[in-house]
Amino acid sequence: MSAGEPIKCIAAVAYEAGKPLTVEEITVDPPKAHEVRVKIEYSAVCHTDAYTLSGVDPEGAFPSILGHEGAGIVESVGEGVTNVKPGDHVIALYTAECKECKFCTSNKTNLCSSVRATQGKGVMPDGTSRFHNSKGEPLLHFMGCSTFSQYTVLADVSVVAIDPEAPLEKVCLLGCGVTTGYGAAIKTANVQKGDTVAVFGAGTVGLSVVQGAKVRGCSKIIVVDLNDQKKDWAIEFGATEFINPTKDLKDGQTIVEKLVEITDGGLDFTFDCTGNTQVMRDALEACHKGWGQSIIIGVAAAGKEISTRPFQLVTGRVWKGSAFGGIKGRSEMDGLISDYLDGKLKVDEFITHKRGFSDINAAFEDLHHGDCLRTVLNLSK
Amino acid sequence: MSAGEPIKCIAAVAYEAGKPLTVEEITVDPPKAHEVRVKIEYSAVCHTDAYTLSGVDPEGAFPSILGHEGAGIVESVGEGVTNVKPGDHVIALYTAECKECKFCTSNKTNLCSSVRATQGKGVMPDGTSRFHNSKGEPLLHFMGCSTFSQYTVLADVSVVAIDPEAPLEKVCLLGCGVTTGYGAAIKTANVQKGDTVAVFGAGTVGLSVVQGAKVRGCSKIIVVDLNDQKKDWAIEFGATEFINPTKDLKDGQTIVEKLVEITDGGLDFTFDCTGNTQVMRDALEACHKGWGQSIIIGVAAAGKEISTRPFQLVTGRVWKGSAFGGIKGRSEMDGLISDYLDGKLKVDEFITHKRGFSDINAAFEDLHHGDCLRTVLNLSK
Ligand SMILES: NC(=O)c1ccc[n+]([C@@H]2O[C@H](COP(=O)([O-])OP(=O)(O)OC[C@H]3O[C@@H](n4cnc5c(N)ncnc54)[C@H](O)[C@@H]3O)[C@@H](O)[C@H]2O)c1
Ligand SMILES: NC(=O)c1ccc[n+]([C@@H]2O[C@H](COP(=O)([O-])OP(=O)(O)OC[C@H]3O[C@@H](n4cnc5c(N)ncnc54)[C@H](O)[C@@H]3O)[C@@H](O)[C@H]2O)c1
Ligand SMILES: [Zn+2]
Ligand SMILES: [Zn+2]
Ligand SMILES: [Zn+2]
Ligand SMILES: [Zn+2]
Repeated sequence: MSAGEPIKCIAAVAYEAGKPLTVEEITVDPPKAHEVRVKIEYSAVCHTDAYTLSGVDPEGAFPSILGHEGAGIVESVGEGVTNVKPGDHVIALYTAECKECKFCTSNKTNLCSSVRATQGKGVMPDGTSRFHNSKGEPLLHFMGCSTFSQYTVLADVSVVAIDPEAPLEKVCLLGCGVTTGYGAAIKTANVQKGDTVAVFGAGTVGLSVVQGAKVRGCSKIIVVDLNDQKKDWAIEFGATEFINPTKDLKDGQTIVEKLVEITDGGLDFTFDCTGNTQVMRDALEACHKGWGQSIIIGVAAAGKEISTRPFQLVTGRVWKGSAFGGIKGRSEMDGLISDYLDGKLKVDEFITHKRGFSDINAAFEDLHHGDCLRTVLNLSK
Repeated sequence: MSAGEPIKCIAAVAYEAGKPLTVEEITVDPPKAHEVRVKIEYSAVCHTDAYTLSGVDPEGAFPSILGHEGAGIVESVGEGVTNVKPGDHVIALYTAECKECKFCTSNKTNLCSSVRATQGKGVMPDGTSRFHNSKGEPLLHFMGCSTFSQYTVLADVSVVAIDPEAPLEKVCLLGCGVTTGYGAAIKTANVQKGDTVAVFGAGTVGLSVVQGAKVRGCSKIIVVDLNDQKKDWAIEFGATEFINPTKDLKDGQTIVEKLVEITDGGLDFTFDCTGNTQVMRDALEACHKGWGQSIIIGVAAAGKEISTRPFQLVTGRVWKGSAFGGIKGRSEMDGLISDYLDGKLKVDEFITHKRGFSDINAAFEDLHHGDCLRTVLNLSK
């Protein structure tokens, strides 16, 4: 029994911005009250991990253990934990859900405030870290998850137990990308049968928006991406049309003009899944006058701003955003897992690459290639 | 009987940008099919009239007859007109409602497209004008209304008949400012009991937002204006607090910080009623994370853009706009008139100045004074 004891295990440590991760042995302390220690089985690599590692995120702090799209099995729980028990299969939640704070009880948002402040600082709710390296130096947590470690400690509000039938090497993707896109479509935008939709950016997030739009029976699902390699995927996930703005526009035509032309005035819903602020503007301006809504999902580079003429809004367009697809991780993950197990929600199809944990730096490289949606790491290899 | 004949009457003609209006005799042709000729009894002056007259509106065209906040009595109707008849008391609608176009039937917007294209060009739906001056030169229409003329011609979709009990010298204000603010609160934002609200700009529009928030039982109604003269009015119309950002902030504090501080995290709804794009940004950023909505009502100067960090939206704030308060002029004016007659909607209180028609240029001057909400012109004087 390891419960109550520190555990030595392998983790990938980010010591410095812009440098590869160091795969080494670390020590993971036992969970304190309202904390859960999880044996991470699988973790995917997401752009936010790469963004932080690159050093351009002004809030990135080092040394730390990155990773936030992971799944595993509860090893032990601290005092007062009632929502999970050892042996439970779980997904780590970077968007916690306490069910008690002003946000959780508002029923208007999934942005729980319970652990926000400490999570942002890379520590557990008591202000300390559960990780240290062989020199005894503490290592920071990341997004309340730190799934790039064979064992991690999470706040109990940041863990959800799932049906053990669901394969962890697949549903780890529900920890971020797939849930973010799918939720943005079916929850934040709440798209309806017959609506027209345009999705900018056909990565895991954008393709998951496409899935949501398809499930709801949207009449047009137009995917816009600069990379032609995304076309087949887009169609496979449910797009009715694919536009590459570098090739598919008439001379002098903008992507906004093209979209307005082929949709008789603009779209009911558009989604930015690129993080590019010019795309965010185009997405808004391609909305139909009177009711079109544009949802920003992409994370922009530090300091970048969005702009438009206010007339765009006065004439009825709505500009929104979505974090983690508006999904409440503990209350709603069950539904997503069922949709997946019932074959309604594609997840396996996003896994283009699989690697052993020791190959994690290659997984970060994969992200920069157009043929990669998600690389899943097997933490026991 | 004047029906079918041209009518000679007095109008205030805008011959040139930046010049005073010329009050002179003009000729008003009879209404064609689906047109209505109205004897305008009263018209207020709104900022949009002044904006166009100033010449800074790139779409302003001359010579034209301005005015869009007016009420009168139907003199005659063209072929096929069924919604009004001679003798009906009416309000001119710069936002038409045809009940048949894609917009009207969407039930998502009040922005009817039926006469939009020609209205924007200053002509009637058949492409011609009903006004000419004594030299026989045609004069352009304005916003589909042109209420600065003793007689005007409107598309039938741009006219609504009202209860003849309602005094025209008061309810002419429902043609723009009052309806715009009140509707933005109760329809576009649909504020609810207990919501917190901030209104930037305490002109007729902003004070009417305050009225809507009060009717709905909002818990905090904070008015922000640079002009202390607006404080008493704000309180009279229902504000619970008045903030003058040039005086009421601590050293180095921004208006956003102040509002977030006094509302425990930000507002449920904010409204820009100034037309200033920096205010629009502040209004958005003063919204509560997770659910706050900001509604742009003010009309910005040509070329001005709004900006913010996309993170503001990703963390749950919503940016919207409102035109004519989201009110469908023909279907919903009745309700506003009843609210007024029942004492629920203040209108008389906005009329700070009254003038004869020949004094119209002084009425434009009134707009620049902090003690003026609305000047109502009596067209028969
Ligand atoms: N809001 C949230 O909760 C949340 C969660 C996860 C990810 N994200 C963000 O969502 C975005 C998408 O994530 P992903 O994993 O799908 O990324 P990805 O890199 O796999 O996909 C992005 C796609 O956008 C395309 N693209 C780039 N620039 C474009 C342009 N100008 N026009 C059209 N297409 C363009 C790329 O070719 C690529 O296919 C990222 O910004 C990520 O940080 C947000
Ligand atoms: N969207 C629509 O359908 C619609 C309809 C009518 C009017 N409008 C617009 O609404 C706006 C308000 O109209 P109104 O008739 O009430 O105008 P107004 O000039 O009477 O009122 C504007 C108020 O804003 C205040 N103000 C100016 N700058 C400010 C700042 N930086 N911070 C705080 N307060 C500031 C002024 O002191 C004034 O009290 C105008 O821009 C007008 O063009 C829009
Ligand atoms: Zn992620
Ligand atoms: Zn919470
Ligand atoms: Zn007006
Ligand atoms: Zn219409």
